[in-house]
Amino acid sequence: MRNGYGILFLLLLFHLAVPAQEPVDFVNPFIGTSNYGATYPGPVRPWGMASVVPFNVAFKKGAENQFEKDSEWHSRPYVAENKFLTGYSHVNLSGVGCPELGSILLMPTHGQLELNPEHYGSTYQDEVATPGYYAHTLDKYSIKTELTATLRTGLSKYTFPQGQSHIILNLGLGLTNETGAALKILSETEVVGHKLIGTFCYNPEDVRPVYFAIKFSKPATNFGAWKKMPPFKGVEAEWTKYNDTIKPYPQFRYELAGDDIGAYFSFETENEEVVYAKVGISYVSIENARQNLQGEQPDFNFDKTRQDARLTWNNLLKRIKVDGGSKDDKTNFYSALYHTLIHPNILQDANGEYPLMEKYGTGNTSENRYTVFSLWDTYRNVHPFLSLVYPEVQSQMVKSMIAMYKESGWLPKWELLGMETSVMVGDPATPVIADTYLRGIRDFDIQTAYEAIKKSATAPDSVNKLRPGIGKYRTLGYIPENHYENVWGTVSTSLEYNIADWNLAQLAKALNKKEDYRNFLKQSASYRNYYDPSTGMLRPRMEKGEWLTPFNPKAGANFEPVIGFVEGNAWQYRFYVPHDIKNLIKMLGGKSRFIKELQLCFDDGNYDMANEPDITYPFLFNFVKGEEWRAQKMVNQLIHKHYFDGPAGLPGNDDTGTLSTWLLFSMLGIYPHCPGDMSYAIVSPTFDKVTIALNANYYPGKELTIEANKSSKNAIYIQNLEVNGQKYNRYFIDHDTLVKGAHLKFELTETRKP
Amino acid sequence: MRNGYGILFLLLLFHLAVPAQEPVDFVNPFIGTSNYGATYPGPVRPWGMASVVPFNVAFKKGAENQFEKDSEWHSRPYVAENKFLTGYSHVNLSGVGCPELGSILLMPTHGQLELNPEHYGSTYQDEVATPGYYAHTLDKYSIKTELTATLRTGLSKYTFPQGQSHIILNLGLGLTNETGAALKILSETEVVGHKLIGTFCYNPEDVRPVYFAIKFSKPATNFGAWKKMPPFKGVEAEWTKYNDTIKPYPQFRYELAGDDIGAYFSFETENEEVVYAKVGISYVSIENARQNLQGEQPDFNFDKTRQDARLTWNNLLKRIKVDGGSKDDKTNFYSALYHTLIHPNILQDANGEYPLMEKYGTGNTSENRYTVFSLWDTYRNVHPFLSLVYPEVQSQMVKSMIAMYKESGWLPKWELLGMETSVMVGDPATPVIADTYLRGIRDFDIQTAYEAIKKSATAPDSVNKLRPGIGKYRTLGYIPENHYENVWGTVSTSLEYNIADWNLAQLAKALNKKEDYRNFLKQSASYRNYYDPSTGMLRPRMEKGEWLTPFNPKAGANFEPVIGFVEGNAWQYRFYVPHDIKNLIKMLGGKSRFIKELQLCFDDGNYDMANEPDITYPFLFNFVKGEEWRAQKMVNQLIHKHYFDGPAGLPGNDDTGTLSTWLLFSMLGIYPHCPGDMSYAIVSPTFDKVTIALNANYYPGKELTIEANKSSKNAIYIQNLEVNGQKYNRYFIDHDTLVKGAHLKFELTETRKP
Repeated sequence: MRNGYGILFLLLLFHLAVPAQEPVDFVNPFIGTSNYGATYPGPVRPWGMASVVPFNVAFKKGAENQFEKDSEWHSRPYVAENKFLTGYSHVNLSGVGCPELGSILLMPTHGQLELNPEHYGSTYQDEVATPGYYAHTLDKYSIKTELTATLRTGLSKYTFPQGQSHIILNLGLGLTNETGAALKILSETEVVGHKLIGTFCYNPEDVRPVYFAIKFSKPATNFGAWKKMPPFKGVEAEWTKYNDTIKPYPQFRYELAGDDIGAYFSFETENEEVVYAKVGISYVSIENARQNLQGEQPDFNFDKTRQDARLTWNNLLKRIKVDGGSKDDKTNFYSALYHTLIHPNILQDANGEYPLMEKYGTGNTSENRYTVFSLWDTYRNVHPFLSLVYPEVQSQMVKSMIAMYKESGWLPKWELLGMETSVMVGDPATPVIADTYLRGIRDFDIQTAYEAIKKSATAPDSVNKLRPGIGKYRTLGYIPENHYENVWGTVSTSLEYNIADWNLAQLAKALNKKEDYRNFLKQSASYRNYYDPSTGMLRPRMEKGEWLTPFNPKAGANFEPVIGFVEGNAWQYRFYVPHDIKNLIKMLGGKSRFIKELQLCFDDGNYDMANEPDITYPFLFNFVKGEEWRAQKMVNQLIHKHYFDGPAGLPGNDDTGTLSTWLLFSMLGIYPHCPGDMSYAIVSPTFDKVTIALNANYYPGKELTIEANKSSKNAIYIQNLEVNGQKYNRYFIDHDTLVKGAHLKFELTETRKP
Repeated sequence: MRNGYGILFLLLLFHLAVPAQEPVDFVNPFIGTSNYGATYPGPVRPWGMASVVPFNVAFKKGAENQFEKDSEWHSRPYVAENKFLTGYSHVNLSGVGCPELGSILLMPTHGQLELNPEHYGSTYQDEVATPGYYAHTLDKYSIKTELTATLRTGLSKYTFPQGQSHIILNLGLGLTNETGAALKILSETEVVGHKLIGTFCYNPEDVRPVYFAIKFSKPATNFGAWKKMPPFKGVEAEWTKYNDTIKPYPQFRYELAGDDIGAYFSFETENEEVVYAKVGISYVSIENARQNLQGEQPDFNFDKTRQDARLTWNNLLKRIKVDGGSKDDKTNFYSALYHTLIHPNILQDANGEYPLMEKYGTGNTSENRYTVFSLWDTYRNVHPFLSLVYPEVQSQMVKSMIAMYKESGWLPKWELLGMETSVMVGDPATPVIADTYLRGIRDFDIQTAYEAIKKSATAPDSVNKLRPGIGKYRTLGYIPENHYENVWGTVSTSLEYNIADWNLAQLAKALNKKEDYRNFLKQSASYRNYYDPSTGMLRPRMEKGEWLTPFNPKAGANFEPVIGFVEGNAWQYRFYVPHDIKNLIKMLGGKSRFIKELQLCFDDGNYDMANEPDITYPFLFNFVKGEEWRAQKMVNQLIHKHYFDGPAGLPGNDDTGTLSTWLLFSMLGIYPHCPGDMSYAIVSPTFDKVTIALNANYYPGKELTIEANKSSKNAIYIQNLEVNGQKYNRYFIDHDTLVKGAHLKFELTETRKP
């Protein structure tokens, strides 16, 4: 029978391979599932609340399971190298850096009922994943699992062998470090409950319940709940039957609560009998989870759901149409686009209800309410990308951010399911909103947004929730070391405030607030206080102005903690003033030293493609006339070194699409080098032709096209560029020009322009 | 201020002491709180669902806390010797032998909020307990706590010092071994939830939720939930703030579930400011718990609730009016009566709903639905006692038992909150129902009851849930050793079946079912198969008839496990055929040997006053003419040896009133020596005069009076007895005579009748 599946699998591959002409067919969801990319291969809709992910990070099992979720800092529900599955999780995060969600696990098993996941887990084979679909076969049970999803539901199709088959719900196992769940079996086909999630990045107070409703297509002949019992000692240990083991509660129908609980449903199955399980998710209530399930998945129509998912993905992906390039190029591009369109995801239920930001209660919205704002990552390129290609979505994301301000008094920093986790540094909501407005997306309440932005830029230390250290930042012009307990990385934090203030200044200018413009523009240049001419570095300072000593600009690479910097070293932050590069060049002693040092950053291993602070650096070569070829070359090298069609084909944690978006812009040949700056740096595009359909509700143009005539396969240098048929000599291009429907035509050669 | 309380306490004592003429004023709820009596001093209504008990059995604390609930087989929420309080539990069992309930703990504290019970616990002083009231003062916080209760609610009055005061809800700590709870803070004055209880006597599958609703009289200025976090290791341990410790969730308003959770409410209090907490209980739903609270405790009227409780108790207690006797005699008597009227308690909510027996779902009743049927204990004397004095209650208890049969298919054995825990042996529901019917209480469905009784007496091994071993018992006439895995104590179990069958025979006779009468009467004598003439003992046998060898009739005392017997040895079961004593006498070789052996049972230390199998033995002397003085003497000795006004004033576990009822009958001078037998053994009464008001709905007489003229204080021998003015020469008296309104008049002397 396993051979039978194998043939079926090959047939299926063949069937899917033949018409592989649609963008969706190029997506490989396995990209990023190794090398700490932290993406997952399971089905999810674009910006979907629910996803169904093969969960394979529990238990060390020698070569079978190398990566164990609790034995390292582990934020992945699935790792390509691992092979020991313990269920399918129904709430998941893609490309984040802390363990969270990976919860509400369903596991199909067969034979004698076994409730210990270490024992019921199984290896698998014949993995297939396409957008909205995942399948494999469990070795231990010869069960074929197929998964698909709608926005707020997951649908699983289990093809069982003949005999006693089971579906086990596990609410104890998961990626989240938060414990606690409750469930209630309503009938032989339904179980509902909630699971506490949160403590994201070990922020202890961030917890909330996720609610679920699960239905099976076939009534269970037997069912029950289970709970892991604590260890007993002494007399109690002699008497109790379940000592530090899993205790079943057959036929239990009451509420069951605990740290490590679940349920099981047993079925008498014929050979190859299919049983479906569908799971509705809500962050508001069990009732809403049931309604979401009923509304989005009234039956168990797997094929229709799978096709809907594919179609939905394809409709979004095809806004960017690519011609030419290799199959790998297309795979890398569309897989990156796919990964970029997962977060921020919707939070509201089908009835519009969602949990309020940072306070108890339920809001209601007729638009989308987005959540999972990893803004320190995404403000750099994801939101500019969405603004360009999916402005209607970016608009609603900004509306969500403004609603969060109204609900909680503050814009988000790292928002998760209505919780402000306060992860990372800076004030990234400001550039997101300013950038969005300046790009021409203005159907949101800019007055309230401005009020919110200015509040975080000016509120004093005692009350400022977003900008720790703001007092000294504003009075001294920098955040000194050893003054604030709550400031992580004085230099990095100040640099982030600088770019936020520069964005605030740009927004003020657009809104004709001249004084604000002047003040915040001035403030945005305060990084200069960190410039140490003796090292040419931005260097931490003490309150009285003295430099932090000793100081090693290379210390702090590879996420090693270092004084003054956040997830990076002085080298990696050396050029991070994207809004003021011209002055940076001057400060460093002029263009030639700037180019030398910037090149050294790459040549000497100081550039980290796997984290955000320096990802804009390759494009900075464009700031020096005649040196743009370096950007073209470097970007091309980085693309080919770090991005490829395989699980390790992302340079590191995708950071909810930020690393994927780097690839998208880089392959398009345009990169928004500074949020809030409406200019894109130009590098050599990858494809022969790219057509981006522009949203007529936001932009005057119908489509943006980028053509490239390559002299050869390895032509990576820009020999010539025409914009709208006119020769174009600059290596930057305005957003405004692009969204009017520009036609960019490149000529690329193997050798750089003389 | 502590001195101030001291004076207040003395004044209170004095105030209560002056009018101490009502029965309720003689009750000392502390009796049985030491010596493993397993009673509790906290307030409870007669047959009440809720109670509020100072919980002092957590944590070993040297001399302060000698008895720790998990370090021994511990079924007590409160122990007199202990002094370290960790809260007040709102569901409790009185006088049971396995750890259960003792849950839903509220603890008032003061000062810095501390959530670890080992740290927030406190010693206390100035304890006062009367029916419906308990008070003490916490040393650590100078908080005075006063407790009272209604049927389904507890009300606590905390008098706080000035400053930051707290009330902590703890759902993790408790006597039950079952884990798991969920809660939701609804507002700054209300929290609701459920707690899983069960696994009674380590029966793994017996679990159910108890629901609660808690309201405070003052809005909390701060509140939150908390949860004990699991241990983390490695990288996670470095990052997590709460590693194997209690984590607070400030302002948390969502559902919180887990093994070890709770909530806290903080108040700014003035000096001596009172904050009340009221707790509604339900075994059906949170909504019912809220309704019970609203209905029974709409305000926070502590004094009224306390007075109502006192009045309710007094109205019940005064059905037996005693004159004469010492203050200690009255204290012992009314305290025993008080303890007898706690279980079985009501299970239904104010709206009539209750959880069905052994299946999921809710029933509804207009009468009381009783629960906590520890029938192996209570069939011996508690139910005969209730039948005599509170027949309207006994009637509803039997109706509850019949309803359980209808719901689950079987009568109860050890029923707890709708669960059949199957604790202990035999078929004790049969004698309870037969005895009740034969005493003249007949307003229940005797046809269904008979059907239920006969089912358990005849259903074969394969399906018989109540009588394991029934196959061989019926075919061989005894249960052989090493045949059944599920039979605990072959001899004991057979003896229990014998008395059940004898009761069934008596009931059959009353219902004119002659064949059943003959068959079961014959079956009831099958204990004779265990009689081993060589030892004079009832001795375990093997399937082919051979005796169990080796055999030590003394092995098995003090609850040591022994083959063939249940919580006792061969000596303690030697005379346990109360329905067939005349034959036992014959079997043992006649009256003089019987008397000799029976006396030896006491003299040689083979009698255990602390457990049920032999508690009827002192009265068996009455079966031999001229030897009745031995019963009078022995009962008198046992009363004075084992029962007194102090925490250790019960011989052992009260077994939901069974040991207390032994005292009640013994002090009255009449003892129902065999359930189903309408005869009482007569011994010397304690009081000068006792008047028992008879319920006119059941009995023809208005009152039963027992008078005793004592020649001196130490007169314990019956010199003369008149019944209704006629000289009475027998030492047994019929139920029928008593309930016609008999007047018994004893003359007692210091020396026995010549």
